[in-house]
Amino acid sequence: MSSHMAIYPGFFDPITNGHLSIINRALTIFDKVVIAILNNPQKDPLFTVDDLIRMIESAVKNEANAEIDTFDGLLVDYVARRGANVILRGLRALSDFEYKFQMALMNRKMDRNIQSVFLMTDYKWFYTSSTIIKEAASFGGDISGLVPDEVNIKLKAKFSGAKKA
Amino acid sequence: MSSHMAIYPGFFDPITNGHLSIINRALTIFDKVVIAILNNPQKDPLFTVDDLIRMIESAVKNEANAEIDTFDGLLVDYVARRGANVILRGLRALSDFEYKFQMALMNRKMDRNIQSVFLMTDYKWFYTSSTIIKEAASFGGDISGLVPDEVNIKLKAKFSGAKKA
Amino acid sequence: MSSHMAIYPGFFDPITNGHLSIINRALTIFDKVVIAILNNPQKDPLFTVDDLIRMIESAVKNEANAEIDTFDGLLVDYVARRGANVILRGLRALSDFEYKFQMALMNRKMDRNIQSVFLMTDYKWFYTSSTIIKEAASFGGDISGLVPDEVNIKLKAKFSGAKKA
Amino acid sequence: MSSHMAIYPGFFDPITNGHLSIINRALTIFDKVVIAILNNPQKDPLFTVDDLIRMIESAVKNEANAEIDTFDGLLVDYVARRGANVILRGLRALSDFEYKFQMALMNRKMDRNIQSVFLMTDYKWFYTSSTIIKEAASFGGDISGLVPDEVNIKLKAKFSGAKKA
Amino acid sequence: MSSHMAIYPGFFDPITNGHLSIINRALTIFDKVVIAILNNPQKDPLFTVDDLIRMIESAVKNEANAEIDTFDGLLVDYVARRGANVILRGLRALSDFEYKFQMALMNRKMDRNIQSVFLMTDYKWFYTSSTIIKEAASFGGDISGLVPDEVNIKLKAKFSGAKKA
Amino acid sequence: MSSHMAIYPGFFDPITNGHLSIINRALTIFDKVVIAILNNPQKDPLFTVDDLIRMIESAVKNEANAEIDTFDGLLVDYVARRGANVILRGLRALSDFEYKFQMALMNRKMDRNIQSVFLMTDYKWFYTSSTIIKEAASFGGDISGLVPDEVNIKLKAKFSGAKKA
Repeated sequence: MSSHMAIYPGFFDPITNGHLSIINRALTIFDKVVIAILNNPQKDPLFTVDDLIRMIESAVKNEANAEIDTFDGLLVDYVARRGANVILRGLRALSDFEYKFQMALMNRKMDRNIQSVFLMTDYKWFYTSSTIIKEAASFGGDISGLVPDEVNIKLKAKFSGAKKA
Repeated sequence: MSSHMAIYPGFFDPITNGHLSIINRALTIFDKVVIAILNNPQKDPLFTVDDLIRMIESAVKNEANAEIDTFDGLLVDYVARRGANVILRGLRALSDFEYKFQMALMNRKMDRNIQSVFLMTDYKWFYTSSTIIKEAASFGGDISGLVPDEVNIKLKAKFSGAKKA
Repeated sequence: MSSHMAIYPGFFDPITNGHLSIINRALTIFDKVVIAILNNPQKDPLFTVDDLIRMIESAVKNEANAEIDTFDGLLVDYVARRGANVILRGLRALSDFEYKFQMALMNRKMDRNIQSVFLMTDYKWFYTSSTIIKEAASFGGDISGLVPDEVNIKLKAKFSGAKKA
Repeated sequence: MSSHMAIYPGFFDPITNGHLSIINRALTIFDKVVIAILNNPQKDPLFTVDDLIRMIESAVKNEANAEIDTFDGLLVDYVARRGANVILRGLRALSDFEYKFQMALMNRKMDRNIQSVFLMTDYKWFYTSSTIIKEAASFGGDISGLVPDEVNIKLKAKFSGAKKA
Repeated sequence: MSSHMAIYPGFFDPITNGHLSIINRALTIFDKVVIAILNNPQKDPLFTVDDLIRMIESAVKNEANAEIDTFDGLLVDYVARRGANVILRGLRALSDFEYKFQMALMNRKMDRNIQSVFLMTDYKWFYTSSTIIKEAASFGGDISGLVPDEVNIKLKAKFSGAKKA
Repeated sequence: MSSHMAIYPGFFDPITNGHLSIINRALTIFDKVVIAILNNPQKDPLFTVDDLIRMIESAVKNEANAEIDTFDGLLVDYVARRGANVILRGLRALSDFEYKFQMALMNRKMDRNIQSVFLMTDYKWFYTSSTIIKEAASFGGDISGLVPDEVNIKLKAKFSGAKKA
């Protein structure tokens, strides 16, 4: 009944070392982990989906069991289309916990066969997020060590007009 | 001194089964419960106030002691105008708790005679809200059981252009 | 259907100004408030039930609608015996919130006709409790302003052998 | 690398419907789920380990992939001995979250190859626990629906001298 | 090594009695406290920076060791430029705590020599903020006692077209 | 008015790397940090006060501005006797935050001249504590890296009869 495949949904705008910590842990539990980029045209992303894919590809290039995909619409529909029954979520801080629980309950309501599985981010990234990293980068802050090298380069390029860069 | 009347303020955009759970509980405690729709033109509601009223009327049509009203401006002024001294609040998750406490303290500061009274939502609706229900409906998600039937129909009509409906 | 009577259960060992803040607020909402001392012989209280009653009597002597009672066994059974349908709870800090929610859900499970109603303690007493007051008093700390005068006197007498008193 | 086996540790004193909800969800994700009773002689359990095993056996008798075991000493050592790399945890309320995160971090510190995987309890059991169930049962409260039937019978027998039973 | 100077950053749009409570406490610990207004042109402030400075000057005019300054760009760069190693933060409610911890960790990541120091707001202002005060003032609510007199006057002037003023 | 001395109170049973992280940070802010061991005979400590002092001495032997002391009775009285006005607290997880806030408010109530100053533990020790370290050590768990070497040796000696050591 179990497909041993986990879907890891998110914006990944951009992918961080916190995301990669979750992906690497999940790869020791599941046979396949699908990194599923939510393609939401109403949001105003920093990077294009193509850029996001390229940065993730570079970051997981040594992981044969990691797959990159995009989706739109309802997450539970996408998970079912993929023949999976597991949504993977990273847990960091407390506020995070509440929001992801709310999502998990709504998803369970809409498809009882799908489980949300929570893994704990490495403590080094408990309090970072794509949002806070973009904010720091926009002011020229040093974010090396929080994102893969390629993401760091791309963020610097984006904000090269910023004060300190 | 007590009027045994409670004012239940909110946007109710739209009313959910979580709201109805609070209203039904309050009707066993207070002689009258006023469902007071906050009419805030700066917000961008999904439904018009007329639509909101009609959906609530339908949902509480068997409750003789439930009244529907609208207000704008300061809540404490409205409560005093109505001759009431109780603001009714539903409590769900934790984040909710903090925000509603903040509101309650500000209201108490502005009118010491008014009490905020908190009831607990049925656990089935701990993690739902008008916002999350609208989001799910906009993607064609099944939200029956989370809202009254008439609200479900109206939400489907609103989002009939959406992917899955 | 509503009796307009609220049962306020607790150990009140001893009663604090935080408790009195809840009682006074409740008296503006309900026609009668019963302060119900839980008589739990397994716990190791500081004061006898007779002492607790006397201190509460002194503190609410001007409130005609406040009644003092004791109970043991299941709270919901006691509430039903009294012909009431409301359990009154004070809310202070966050940890408080979780524990009292758990109690409220268990009580609702055992008697669907009984509602838990939460009032917010005055912010002055958000972070005090009978336990922390007893601890401070045991070291000779000044707790005037946190408890009624008579309680302050009784606590000083209890701990008169303490270092600083 | 992945064994698709999850270890679900706990006291299970006694097993509740909340535990069973986690076990049933886990069985749709993992090939085998080991219910591992922590045998801690310093704690003062209500039931003997033999009783705990019998109650769990009865509750999971239709689940071919659920196994019951006992352990003492360090959890990570037991998990490694079993050839597993997943510790399963149920998440309910907030306070729960903090404690289980602390445990998970300590376990990760002691064995980097072991992952803690969190599943969400069904909302019906968000605010129940073995402890609160035992407390309610000890006062003669009705706990049917919160525990398997056999546990309910055994709890009633334990507390038959209690007030209301 | 220690400069005994603390930088207190924020929008202060406008300054509240909660901010002043933190400043006054900090002045008993540090030799100098710099109130550093973050000048963020992307935000849409209610008052101009000149107005903010004038209101703060009026509020701290008797404190010889309080200095007012403005900055933009990265906070840690500004702190280093000032020759300080302490960022001062006020702590109020819980949600506050998480956000400010996240900021503190990011700042520590970017400059290991800088410490974030947290002081507790007076409980009277635990649940107020510039945002909620502006909201109340915009509806004509009485906010005296929550802000310095001059701020109260300026807020009334801003919202003189509002319903109740 | 400011003495630039901070009192860091606690049981330190035993001192951990989390405590040392707070002490080292505080030494960059204050001219002197007093590590004040609370000598509470009612508690049942693992180590004697003499042992605790020796372990702390060893851990801070290179810090000229760190002093070790013991106290009993009310903390605020001890702080005043020392001529200090700052109580230093480390903040880790959330539950921690609530308890330490409660303590800080009680201390402020008892002596208005004393400030509680909170520093953030290094994220590596967010979820560890003396209690959890002792528990892990009692089962033979590897706690090197969480405590100074000398503490590790002393803990191993204490629990040498334990299963795995």
